Amino acid sequence: MADVNAVGQQFVQFYYQTFDSNRANLQSLYRDTSMLTFEGAPIQGAAAIAEKLTSLPFQQVQHKITTLDAQPSSPSMSSILVNVTGALIVDDSQNPLQFSQVFQLIPEGGTYYVFNDIFRLNYG
Amino acid sequence: MADVNAVGQQFVQFYYQTFDSNRANLQSLYRDTSMLTFEGAPIQGAAAIAEKLTSLPFQQVQHKITTLDAQPSSPSMSSILVNVTGALIVDDSQNPLQFSQVFQLIPEGGTYYVFNDIFRLNYG
Repeated sequence: MADVNAVGQQFVQFYYQTFDSNRANLQSLYRDTSMLTFEGAPIQGAAAIAEKLTSLPFQQVQHKITTLDAQPSSPSMSSILVNVTGALIVDDSQNPLQFSQVFQLIPEGGTYYVFNDIFRLNYG
Repeated sequence: MADVNAVGQQFVQFYYQTFDSNRANLQSLYRDTSMLTFEGAPIQGAAAIAEKLTSLPFQQVQHKITTLDAQPSSPSMSSILVNVTGALIVDDSQNPLQFSQVFQLIPEGGTYYVFNDIFRLNYG
């Protein structure tokens, strides 16, 4: 599963780098059929997802990845399931928030888009 | 997405109930193509997965679900992605361990089997 892990790693690095620098740019990673469930709230489609992400009530955010696991998600196409756990630091907060996030990536023209995205904060 | 949530809920309740009472019985939920990544270690196939789960070094375990999110995971078949966060209590420990776990369920003959399973403890 070396390849799947490499793609997962690359994607996740790109995703959080983009999130932490200019999260409006994440819209291009989603399609009209894409789903985000953000803290239990379901959102569908690239435009609505980008609107949700850009309207989150903080100015600065930094994601730190703790674990990353990837698996092929289909017997019939090269889609990939990626599970991330990590911490995020928001604005001037001293307390990192633990989170877990799952993506399913679907291949499209030599790259991948996000079909599934589920984000949760983990309160200890 | 009511149906997807209902299936996710039903599955997860059954899964952890079985895990906490007689985890050898979880084998029937997996197939030879099923994958488990357990704390970063990849395991493939129902038999190997059941062996891993039954060899975990505790006698008693109790899973408590904190959040459960489900999404359809394919445009072409009724497979389901389920993300769980929760706490588990092992043997006589007073300290619940936070965990996150992702399943992809694939339909088969009126029921579902687990194709993907990724488990991680979340250290705060």
